[in-house]
Amino acid sequence: MMRSADRMTRIQPFHVMALLARARELEAAGRSIVHMEIGEPDFITPQPVIDAGIKALQQGHTHYTQAVGLTALRERIALFYRERYRVTVEPERIVITPGASAALQLVMATLINPGNAVLMADPGYPCNRNFVHLLNGEPRGIPVDATTAYQPSPEQVRAHWDETVSALMLASPSNPTGTLLGEQDIQQLFEIVRERGGSLVVDEIYHGLTYAGSAQTALAVSGDIFVINSFSKYFGMTGWRLGWLVAPVSSVAELDKLAQNLFLAAPTPAQHAALAAFEPDNITILEARREEFRIRRDYLLPALRELGFDIPVTPEGAFYLYADCSRFTDDSFSFSKQLLEEVGVAITPGIDFGNHRPERHVRFAYTTSLENLTEGVRRLREFL
Amino acid sequence: MMRSADRMTRIQPFHVMALLARARELEAAGRSIVHMEIGEPDFITPQPVIDAGIKALQQGHTHYTQAVGLTALRERIALFYRERYRVTVEPERIVITPGASAALQLVMATLINPGNAVLMADPGYPCNRNFVHLLNGEPRGIPVDATTAYQPSPEQVRAHWDETVSALMLASPSNPTGTLLGEQDIQQLFEIVRERGGSLVVDEIYHGLTYAGSAQTALAVSGDIFVINSFSKYFGMTGWRLGWLVAPVSSVAELDKLAQNLFLAAPTPAQHAALAAFEPDNITILEARREEFRIRRDYLLPALRELGFDIPVTPEGAFYLYADCSRFTDDSFSFSKQLLEEVGVAITPGIDFGNHRPERHVRFAYTTSLENLTEGVRRLREFL
Repeated sequence: MMRSADRMTRIQPFHVMALLARARELEAAGRSIVHMEIGEPDFITPQPVIDAGIKALQQGHTHYTQAVGLTALRERIALFYRERYRVTVEPERIVITPGASAALQLVMATLINPGNAVLMADPGYPCNRNFVHLLNGEPRGIPVDATTAYQPSPEQVRAHWDETVSALMLASPSNPTGTLLGEQDIQQLFEIVRERGGSLVVDEIYHGLTYAGSAQTALAVSGDIFVINSFSKYFGMTGWRLGWLVAPVSSVAELDKLAQNLFLAAPTPAQHAALAAFEPDNITILEARREEFRIRRDYLLPALRELGFDIPVTPEGAFYLYADCSRFTDDSFSFSKQLLEEVGVAITPGIDFGNHRPERHVRFAYTTSLENLTEGVRRLREFL
Repeated sequence: MMRSADRMTRIQPFHVMALLARARELEAAGRSIVHMEIGEPDFITPQPVIDAGIKALQQGHTHYTQAVGLTALRERIALFYRERYRVTVEPERIVITPGASAALQLVMATLINPGNAVLMADPGYPCNRNFVHLLNGEPRGIPVDATTAYQPSPEQVRAHWDETVSALMLASPSNPTGTLLGEQDIQQLFEIVRERGGSLVVDEIYHGLTYAGSAQTALAVSGDIFVINSFSKYFGMTGWRLGWLVAPVSSVAELDKLAQNLFLAAPTPAQHAALAAFEPDNITILEARREEFRIRRDYLLPALRELGFDIPVTPEGAFYLYADCSRFTDDSFSFSKQLLEEVGVAITPGIDFGNHRPERHVRFAYTTSLENLTEGVRRLREFL
């Protein structure tokens, strides 16, 4: 009998995967399923980026790049911060990674010793907990609710901090709640963290996908904040596996060293393709897609509220609605399973996002067409 | 002041990176450098695979695949084991990963608790030590030399084993020494490991690149061995970042769960492209390249020996020669630096591969043309 590492019992599988597998079974048997569980844009990558990827392959760009990524791409991202946020970021502080996943892992690995705690919102992105488990740290959820727009408050961060804490993780827009943090919120939280000798990590992978004004980057607050971003969501490049990390200048050498060991480099064709992602013709396409997401949100949010789901804070970004379903059930996982079996609507149960009242919450993703969402709402009405 | 995790002092940067940076400086200043330090085939990816990658992009394959990879690719790899090795591997046991790096990390993370030791040959692939450091384990080097063809012997494994050991890592062909393990060697080592309740992990990423007979996979010995492979070396797909792992059937669910969290999925265009890697037209190209590597080895090995480097065991695979340079120096790192500065030849100092007599060894990679190798040897002669 082989022994398994202890962390494997602490790392939970995503419950939605079981639902997704069942949804595929049902589809294979001829049932129609409305997918509102998937955290990935339904659009394929815009043509200008696909064309740039094809060109990179035609030109034979198939060797490794340096571990921190193509210089031209790091420079282009630096320019993007100047253009979009009016913030100066030196290209040397940007590390290109195989997806935001690798960026999250790099940061955690440079910060966390076994036994160290990392504070994060509960509900929150499930992988964050598991990156901490990987390193035998303690993911410490801060229970958040509508009173603070599902973001940790300064009081909560102070109350949850102790000497074992090495970092605070924030996400703006947040998954699963779609809520933002303002520049002043970030400033205030950063000061609390800094006073305590900790690090602040801000997940901005849904930046660009906001529907009422735009979000400011945490880098406007300080260059000593770790910021994670991705080509997956706004840029629509999920399958290419490309993200980036902006780090304090003093951390770059350590991150480079770790990247050399853990993943060698991000995929080369993807890095070349991503250079086209910032061009005006591509941004025009992305902005049209953002408008489409806004239309979907503006349809789905009132429709769900009308059905009796409680969504007390209007989500300003990402493509998720986190809904209180306690009017219908006190077991959101069974509710999700029933919904799938009886009317063919797939959603994500709260349990995947943490321990704070998961049984009374579900997440709806509007990563499918307005037509599908309308059909989904019709089926929900029938079910309820 | 931010605190850094303790592992960051244990993870050493690759010393060759400093040499590589200096080599690029010299090149930028107009100097000619013969590169014999690079662990990457000089050939670009063969055209059939590039064409398949282009086709995948044209068809819009830009979304995530499932975490364990495309079913068609897992099935194709299973068929490859049947065709090439006459070994049955169920597709369900194959996990597609973003490079062999991710495969190594997945395996280690499922096996190692903090404080657990992993046995591995010294000299060996440097990242292996650091994957163990990532998890706060102890990489325990087994000092190997020519008497056992630079592979751990059964006696050594028994002597280095204690209750803290969770796994033995082997590599065949080995980096940096290019030596192989026979099926009986693997069988014997596997029995020692199994008797002690540990796991055996075999790195086969240089499989296919052997120059006198072919290597048998460890999977012929047992389905309970973890085997790592890659599209980077034999298949020439380094920059695409694609590898795979064959795992015992009982471990697949845990690996899947971990893959979902750590990297979501391997790059999608690369997975589609890799389907073409096994086709006869591509294999023909790969076999011609293997022949080219053989010709280079057959030139470089006697040439280095004639110059006075001691290479007691003829390397049968990979594209490396690990040479004892103690006739010229007792400090191989300074020797490497001097060689670069004075005659423009870049090689890798022994220090990057471990602690067992690194100061008297250097690694030559024959990942450059015969013409360049000839020029390199000429410069070496001049230098010595």
